[in-house]
Amino acid sequence: MSLSPDLPTLRDIATPALVVDEAVLDANIARMAGFARTGSVALRPHAKTHKSSEIARRQIAAGAAGICCATVAEVEAMAAAGIGGLLLTCPIGDATKAARIAALNRKAPLAVVVDHPAQVDLLQNAVGTDDPPLLVLVDVDVGQRRTGVVGAAAVLALAKRIRDQQTLSFGGLQGYAGHVQHIVDADERKAAAAAAGEQLQAMSFALQVEGLPCAIVSGSGTGASAYDTNGPYTELQAGSYVLMDADYRRIRTAEGGLPYAPALFVLASVVSAGRPGQFTVDAGVKSLAVNGPVPDILRGAPDGCRYQFSGDEHGTIMLPDGAAAPPIGTRLLIAATHCDPTVNLFSAYHFVGHNGGVRTVPVLGRH
Amino acid sequence: MSLSPDLPTLRDIATPALVVDEAVLDANIARMAGFARTGSVALRPHAKTHKSSEIARRQIAAGAAGICCATVAEVEAMAAAGIGGLLLTCPIGDATKAARIAALNRKAPLAVVVDHPAQVDLLQNAVGTDDPPLLVLVDVDVGQRRTGVVGAAAVLALAKRIRDQQTLSFGGLQGYAGHVQHIVDADERKAAAAAAGEQLQAMSFALQVEGLPCAIVSGSGTGASAYDTNGPYTELQAGSYVLMDADYRRIRTAEGGLPYAPALFVLASVVSAGRPGQFTVDAGVKSLAVNGPVPDILRGAPDGCRYQFSGDEHGTIMLPDGAAAPPIGTRLLIAATHCDPTVNLFSAYHFVGHNGGVRTVPVLGRH
Repeated sequence: MSLSPDLPTLRDIATPALVVDEAVLDANIARMAGFARTGSVALRPHAKTHKSSEIARRQIAAGAAGICCATVAEVEAMAAAGIGGLLLTCPIGDATKAARIAALNRKAPLAVVVDHPAQVDLLQNAVGTDDPPLLVLVDVDVGQRRTGVVGAAAVLALAKRIRDQQTLSFGGLQGYAGHVQHIVDADERKAAAAAAGEQLQAMSFALQVEGLPCAIVSGSGTGASAYDTNGPYTELQAGSYVLMDADYRRIRTAEGGLPYAPALFVLASVVSAGRPGQFTVDAGVKSLAVNGPVPDILRGAPDGCRYQFSGDEHGTIMLPDGAAAPPIGTRLLIAATHCDPTVNLFSAYHFVGHNGGVRTVPVLGRH
Repeated sequence: MSLSPDLPTLRDIATPALVVDEAVLDANIARMAGFARTGSVALRPHAKTHKSSEIARRQIAAGAAGICCATVAEVEAMAAAGIGGLLLTCPIGDATKAARIAALNRKAPLAVVVDHPAQVDLLQNAVGTDDPPLLVLVDVDVGQRRTGVVGAAAVLALAKRIRDQQTLSFGGLQGYAGHVQHIVDADERKAAAAAAGEQLQAMSFALQVEGLPCAIVSGSGTGASAYDTNGPYTELQAGSYVLMDADYRRIRTAEGGLPYAPALFVLASVVSAGRPGQFTVDAGVKSLAVNGPVPDILRGAPDGCRYQFSGDEHGTIMLPDGAAAPPIGTRLLIAATHCDPTVNLFSAYHFVGHNGGVRTVPVLGRH
């Protein structure tokens, strides 16, 4: 089945709506899982992309060792849905969040990261001595300059501080090279990925020498995953591959491009068609992330149409010369070019199955 | 009370969180209400800004004649909360939406807009002959080129088509000059507002001559409201004034600037502070709209700090020379520079009252 806005099952969905092509989703999941297996590295895909326990479950069924989350609310939503092997990839800053983490860990063990001694203390105070120990990784800044410890001495000091807490267990390192993932040129991206990996490798070895072996070295992303199986990583955190951002389709590999296809669309309706050369749909800034390439793939409109944001609830579609606007009510599928923040704009997905049937799947853990 | 992240009541709120300074909110509401009263024009503030029945109720208590909504879901949420005088300002494109509008109109009369004959037919088919007639305005394109009928002849034809339906009632015109609201220079904005108003005035007169008097001429926004009381409008649709976008603070008036103050903030926590010259907070693209000026007002951090987006859940704060990063867990208030899409990122507000107390207020009708 090829996803089309003319599918009878799509005609009754209230627009704007978030639509997933299930066949493409499953192919993306299988491809990354197979790739990790071939590389002998575990896969812990990032749920901040999809915020869906249903997608997480499919990733685990395909072989993923667990799921990464960006917020405590995402961890809570995944844990409530029975998803195990959770890793919170962002350091927290206060006792309330630490208490929520401790409560989660009491029910099912999870792992978190820290990049500052204050966070070790917050977690140590939150986890009870009768609780299972909380697995804590040191978040290392491998060049993204966002979170993470800078420098081997500070990493070692923080790892020792974790080890010395009665209620915590040192688990290893996280180093997410966010600055590497979107580099277009293959050789340049490979070199940048290697530089980040070498830092982690050296730190991991230094810790081992000090009697602090790293059971986990977690990192990588969709853009660099092809190179990082040769790095120090025990697991890949790639997330975007599952729905596939348009921006990642620009980047080059030895084989041409990344082997993942766009699975996420916004279904919109034509709501105004009175101006020559253009028409208006009901999907704007509150339906499509603006911090990606302009949405450029349309189904349901003449070839050569261009989407422009026109406020919170509208997009203007510029028609190619001589083309007529589709009738009022016509359904269009617009490719989501930046999936994570687009998913975050909706409370639910509409999964379009292999047989054309539609199921509603909730988006979890939004602010 | 001056809103500060050191307020004891803010320390326990999980970050990132949406915070409203209730004193500023109420002052903004009172100021626009008084302004409309002085100008002898009704006020129907736009709820797409706030998506809150609580704020709508305060606007009505201050004198607003009703509330505008951008989506059917917003209308449903406001109607369910008992808010009356609702106007749906965006034309719809399908029978499902028309049916939802008809169901709402059966419970409490509302008004909608159309810009195409197909929409008249959809509504006419949806509203039953035993239902109260649905009030329908013709949406006029006064230069924004987004929705709205172009040209007087088409406006007249559409108004007649509405009048000729058994279940619909012609209510007048809507002309939203979205292209005018953000013009910085006062004289230039005034001239553009006058040009839009003159189009509506001429169309309104042409309709009157044809026996189709316009009981309602709805339009205007926060930027042009000071000029539009002299225009053809029977009511102002201004919305942003209530929380006040930073972008609107740039625009000039004869008195200097618009008399509304920012009421909306995102409360964030310091979660990483290991790099010289910067630190990281837990509010990023999923907490602050990116399609406005860079968030530039911080409370809780040294003067001269600059916010930069750093992904879905992070912002990097660049410190001025020589300043030290605040400790992990420090709370910051970041001014939301584009309120509508920022509100849309959260399920609830935290209203900080005149006495410093905090109440949770839901955000309604998100996709």
